[in-house]
Amino acid sequence: MSKFTNATITKEANIYYDGSVTSRSVELEDGSQISLGVMLPGEYTFNTNKAEIMEILSGNLEVKLPDEEWKTLSTPESFNVAANSSFDVRVKTVTDYCCRYID
Amino acid sequence: MSKFTNATITKEANIYYDGSVTSRSVELEDGSQISLGVMLPGEYTFNTNKAEIMEILSGNLEVKLPDEEWKTLSTPESFNVAANSSFDVRVKTVTDYCCRYID
Repeated sequence: MSKFTNATITKEANIYYDGSVTSRSVELEDGSQISLGVMLPGEYTFNTNKAEIMEILSGNLEVKLPDEEWKTLSTPESFNVAANSSFDVRVKTVTDYCCRYID
Repeated sequence: MSKFTNATITKEANIYYDGSVTSRSVELEDGSQISLGVMLPGEYTFNTNKAEIMEILSGNLEVKLPDEEWKTLSTPESFNVAANSSFDVRVKTVTDYCCRYID
């Protein structure tokens, strides 16, 4: 188990897709923003404002990035998403993730 | 939205009931422990080691504490659970909670 110290965490959850995707917003010591979340099995599309690094901690899923084919991730694995774009996921098993927002 | 500052958060999620209940473990600045979690609709039983204060941030549910009848909570509302006991919940809508562990 790894930990983030000296972090600021928002108490209330972010709830998407009727609870199938939920996360907590965290500001790290260096001021960068992350969200720690869980996705239940299902298909989801996420839009990005800032660029993101999606770090998959556990779980089986496929991801489709813009202009790319679907690919199966071998967890733990990360993928990058450009700002102002979107990505699709097909979540096969409960997936734990850490999303880093890149300024 | 309220925030916990100078906190230590464990990166990996706690996952229960096949993902229907998930949480993140947080140590607060004063050394006390909490978990910030989400429960999807369903019926769950939780065992306690330490005494707990369960603060329901949002969502509709009923709770049954030991030797008590089922009662509907009017969120936001908190309830206390003794150490080394358990409680049952019937979650009606996605429920966001903060569980404080009492030494």
